[in-house]
Amino acid sequence: MTSQFLQFDRTGNPAEVLQLQERKLTPPEGHEVRVRMRYAPVNPADLNFMEGTYGRAAHPPCTPGHEGCGEVEAVGDKVTSLEKGDVVMPLVGTGCWTQHLTAPEHHFAKLPPQIDQVQASMLRINPVTAWALLKYYTELPKGAWVAQNAANSGVGRAFIQLAKHLGLRTINFVRRAELVDELKTLGADVVLLDSDEGVAEAKKIVGHEPVMLATNAVGGDSAIHLMDLLSPEGILVTYGAMSRRSLKVPNKFLIFKNLQLHGLWITKWFEKATTAELYQVLDPLVRMIETNDLVTAIDEIVPLAEYQRAIKRAQEGARGGKVILDLA
Amino acid sequence: MTSQFLQFDRTGNPAEVLQLQERKLTPPEGHEVRVRMRYAPVNPADLNFMEGTYGRAAHPPCTPGHEGCGEVEAVGDKVTSLEKGDVVMPLVGTGCWTQHLTAPEHHFAKLPPQIDQVQASMLRINPVTAWALLKYYTELPKGAWVAQNAANSGVGRAFIQLAKHLGLRTINFVRRAELVDELKTLGADVVLLDSDEGVAEAKKIVGHEPVMLATNAVGGDSAIHLMDLLSPEGILVTYGAMSRRSLKVPNKFLIFKNLQLHGLWITKWFEKATTAELYQVLDPLVRMIETNDLVTAIDEIVPLAEYQRAIKRAQEGARGGKVILDLA
Repeated sequence: MTSQFLQFDRTGNPAEVLQLQERKLTPPEGHEVRVRMRYAPVNPADLNFMEGTYGRAAHPPCTPGHEGCGEVEAVGDKVTSLEKGDVVMPLVGTGCWTQHLTAPEHHFAKLPPQIDQVQASMLRINPVTAWALLKYYTELPKGAWVAQNAANSGVGRAFIQLAKHLGLRTINFVRRAELVDELKTLGADVVLLDSDEGVAEAKKIVGHEPVMLATNAVGGDSAIHLMDLLSPEGILVTYGAMSRRSLKVPNKFLIFKNLQLHGLWITKWFEKATTAELYQVLDPLVRMIETNDLVTAIDEIVPLAEYQRAIKRAQEGARGGKVILDLA
Repeated sequence: MTSQFLQFDRTGNPAEVLQLQERKLTPPEGHEVRVRMRYAPVNPADLNFMEGTYGRAAHPPCTPGHEGCGEVEAVGDKVTSLEKGDVVMPLVGTGCWTQHLTAPEHHFAKLPPQIDQVQASMLRINPVTAWALLKYYTELPKGAWVAQNAANSGVGRAFIQLAKHLGLRTINFVRRAELVDELKTLGADVVLLDSDEGVAEAKKIVGHEPVMLATNAVGGDSAIHLMDLLSPEGILVTYGAMSRRSLKVPNKFLIFKNLQLHGLWITKWFEKATTAELYQVLDPLVRMIETNDLVTAIDEIVPLAEYQRAIKRAQEGARGGKVILDLA
């Protein structure tokens, strides 16, 4: 029995270095579980990993794919937490762009059998990042304002839905005005252009109410807009750098306004989280997926054989959502 | 009975806008205490306040002077915490450049009668800042490494002495090689040039031991050197911006290295600290002054009448320590 998987032998342009390979399957042993993967999204982190610009170096040959969803197909004789047919989400760093994934049982989180597997395949990175951004840096009372840039990104959209679910109000900065209505439909309270005027407008809207948390995936001037909007002692969490520009922090914001700056890399969080912490985050997110309160937009679902088209599409700027590899 | 004090009627070059004035004294009433001021240093914060570039705007006419030391001369009929002859340090924001200072009793901290009043006049800002930098951001075990730039500054020198007292080891970055021996005499473990080579050397010295705290008063490249030296999850506290350049934070340091960035403005700390918290910090510092474990270097003690010379001297770059106004 053979199985297909994607692999790159050197870092470079993903569309060029990635190749479809085949291997023979061997039965799982001991604590190993073999999962028949169903779906895996193409994330910016996957592209960066192949390009060699990600936070963790690739040591080729590597199979990319930071997240995905599938079903247990076979288990080793010492496995206790999973059985054949269970729907699972891999917690391995990368390696999800494969038809079969074999790893120790603690590398999989069990999901409800009826869950939408396409949605579940996108649960590990963006929604968990948004959850960590909203829950791990400060206690926010109901009705509190939180702000973000890149509000149209995968994390940004999860952030809007989660914040609404948690009873928080969001100020969302975007680069294109045509996104306003769409994000409001998703639950955004305020959507503004990411500009000096947008920040002035946001300040008018919040008035004397505090903005204690803002999340940054852009850097440069956009991050300065958020620091400007934050209240004294406020927290800016940086989890991305879409502008590729360093964070520039005017001295007054650090010293006199006493802002706190943090960074979040969800990969590191997963490495440190205990199983209990993990399910504490996953359980409410899974419930939100089941009730359609957390919906990640999909651009296109592409068969594994057409992976090169999937990669190219994911590299394009203006998409309607995630590109998903169909591994089945 | 008349008393002299310094005042500026508009912000600008301190040497030009500052004037010596005289007023008639009135007896303190109720909870008021009148202190005969003895010494007050000229700090960068004082110069910035007069220039109008400080974190808190000046509303002239103002008497500058963020810190000083003196003796209680008279008390109002409701005062319970102080009596005539007590040595005190004012906790008012500014206003110490005066022969007499009248304020409610809670605006003064009582010091031991035998304390060196010149040293005590410099206690409130630099040593308290150094204490807060070392104690308020993370728990450091004995022997832990801490790093700083501007190690030759007032705060930098207090930081070295306090760190030694707390059993910590310091890596100190300076701009001039001739400072190395002097700072080592003060208790510095490692003194290096604030350059890429200096950071490489520091990394060699610490090896695999963590550097969890670094303090920054410079910004620009110097702050990047500290972020480079810090261990993952490390904390950078910015309390000054001598280079006048914003903090520039390469994305990898925030996201992948997960550094935390904080700012400290000791003025704000004083506004928030309770009396108990205040004495918790002052008591050990006072004891260190008494045992000569905390010594602030003095450049010159200048009589009040020659305040313009004092200001000019304080504006010069290469001094051997603080310029002190003698108010007696």
